[in-house]
Amino acid sequence: MKDMHQRTELSSLGEFGLIDRITSAVELVNPSSLQGIGDDAAVIDPQGLMQVVTTDMLVEGVHFDLSYVPLKHLGYKSMIVNFSDVYAMNAEPKQVTVAIAISNRFSLEAVDELYAGMLAACGVYGVDLVGGDTTSSTSGLVISVTAIGVARKEDLVYRHGAKENDLLVVSGDLGGAYMGLQVLEREKAVFKQDPNVQPDLAGFDYILERQLKPEARKDIIAMFQELKLRPTAMIDVSDGLASEAMHIARRSELGVKIYDEKIPIDPVTYRTARDFNLDPTTCALNGGEDYELLFTIAQSDFDKVKGSPHFSVVGHMTDQASGYQLVDKQGGQHELKAQGWDALLKK
Amino acid sequence: MKDMHQRTELSSLGEFGLIDRITSAVELVNPSSLQGIGDDAAVIDPQGLMQVVTTDMLVEGVHFDLSYVPLKHLGYKSMIVNFSDVYAMNAEPKQVTVAIAISNRFSLEAVDELYAGMLAACGVYGVDLVGGDTTSSTSGLVISVTAIGVARKEDLVYRHGAKENDLLVVSGDLGGAYMGLQVLEREKAVFKQDPNVQPDLAGFDYILERQLKPEARKDIIAMFQELKLRPTAMIDVSDGLASEAMHIARRSELGVKIYDEKIPIDPVTYRTARDFNLDPTTCALNGGEDYELLFTIAQSDFDKVKGSPHFSVVGHMTDQASGYQLVDKQGGQHELKAQGWDALLKK
Repeated sequence: MKDMHQRTELSSLGEFGLIDRITSAVELVNPSSLQGIGDDAAVIDPQGLMQVVTTDMLVEGVHFDLSYVPLKHLGYKSMIVNFSDVYAMNAEPKQVTVAIAISNRFSLEAVDELYAGMLAACGVYGVDLVGGDTTSSTSGLVISVTAIGVARKEDLVYRHGAKENDLLVVSGDLGGAYMGLQVLEREKAVFKQDPNVQPDLAGFDYILERQLKPEARKDIIAMFQELKLRPTAMIDVSDGLASEAMHIARRSELGVKIYDEKIPIDPVTYRTARDFNLDPTTCALNGGEDYELLFTIAQSDFDKVKGSPHFSVVGHMTDQASGYQLVDKQGGQHELKAQGWDALLKK
Repeated sequence: MKDMHQRTELSSLGEFGLIDRITSAVELVNPSSLQGIGDDAAVIDPQGLMQVVTTDMLVEGVHFDLSYVPLKHLGYKSMIVNFSDVYAMNAEPKQVTVAIAISNRFSLEAVDELYAGMLAACGVYGVDLVGGDTTSSTSGLVISVTAIGVARKEDLVYRHGAKENDLLVVSGDLGGAYMGLQVLEREKAVFKQDPNVQPDLAGFDYILERQLKPEARKDIIAMFQELKLRPTAMIDVSDGLASEAMHIARRSELGVKIYDEKIPIDPVTYRTARDFNLDPTTCALNGGEDYELLFTIAQSDFDKVKGSPHFSVVGHMTDQASGYQLVDKQGGQHELKAQGWDALLKK
């Protein structure tokens, strides 16, 4: 049986030993992955398709707190945030490279956990880990991931393709990841005051999973194929609905109108927000990290999403002069603002 | 005139402001760069070629010391180390993504310098900056770069293609970057003892440039084309000749023999090593960061490199059982060891 308390120093392996260990756990599944880890560069055969490339960096103390984020979940999430960007182009992720800077306070077992999470995500999404870099860090853990995907040129969806009167649609529900974080932060504060108190996480499973183990909407891209639905513009929800809707509007040189009551919010998210004296709509608009897809479609495509439990029409695109508007339940219009988390926390 | 002492806080721009500023300085030159910064992912048209991908991470306090490395040089070098990996595949870099984590002790002017260096390198090497991520850091500066290049499938050169009796050839000269670093470290130590002493860097221009502003051997790849020379295996010299030669041997399931007196060492490198009581050969074997290309060729191709000032034949590949050998001027054989910098510094 594996001794969970075993601690092997990273220095006992050295950089090359660590790379060999990571490499031995990797199996390439995509025929397009011609050369994986082990040379100066990975080699990919694009097989006649366009390549999309996205990079995200996660920094300890900024993007994650290891006092409540298990390393395996962190590894998984570090992949998901990048896969989500690829899906947001209506493309499919196929390869990934990972660079990490890690200090010697981490053991080999900790690094194994981190990569186990990364490789689990690669397995679920059919992506090959083909390269990377491991280096030491003087302080915290830094993870930089680059994901590479493919699409036919005519299938690619950008942020800038929306047209006036297009419907604004979002997959799944919003605000859960943000409320999950609030619960974790609260329990951490309680634990700090009295380490004997067990964290009270019962009933919060859904939003904790949204925060700790998010998924990317591979299934939505598949649905687009089945429905023969090509969004006119698309973005993934990493910074919150308001910010993302404004990105689509700005890039498409349009305005946007979002209807407060149309925003999909899960009951657990709603109830928890109320418990925290937060407005659930504000959490959904500005919370971020939901990794849902926000996209626009022609009104003529409305029948394809109507009644689907996966999609919510939350608004529509307007002319540029109308600006960015939020319509409340009473029909009052407010200027839409991308506040982000900072603003939320200051309230 | 630009006020060199101006300091603008990064927080005054915010993340999106910073991205806009970086983007405005970027111009795409390659027809294969269909979409640059500004969407969920960059889009590349492979135009029927294979794609190669490489990632390197540079960490403050581990890979660079800002007390003597100008940010512009650091930006330049962070590109070069990645381009070098692409050339080592006999491929040409075309796109790059950059993720940086930066603390608020850096000003906007400092970030401008860093990106100016990156974009200068992109300009010289014909590479497009197509994407990235900027995030805050709780301590030092971390730079993660992913370079993407192209090659025809039949032109790609791996580490594993060497054959027994192939000649081992290196471009340029070795050990300079390492000796440049020694000079910088010495002057830093002097400065720490007495800040009124001006650093004495006269006469060290060549090795300081090797350390602070290295170049990648784009010209060598072009020479291969002209000479109709296809190396059987190739790697770039980032960790030192010994380590890289052993990588080629190990991947090709061969042994390797290097002749001490054949290793190309610049007179400034040689003289400086002697001044520091270091063996110049050891510096060339283990110093690293020279970003020269180390490659193997069939003996029948010897005429193509013979007499060239750009190439030195430093040894040859042997059968696997013969292991990794260094032959000294007296003909004595010693086991070749990849000591790396740590071992050098402990001596």
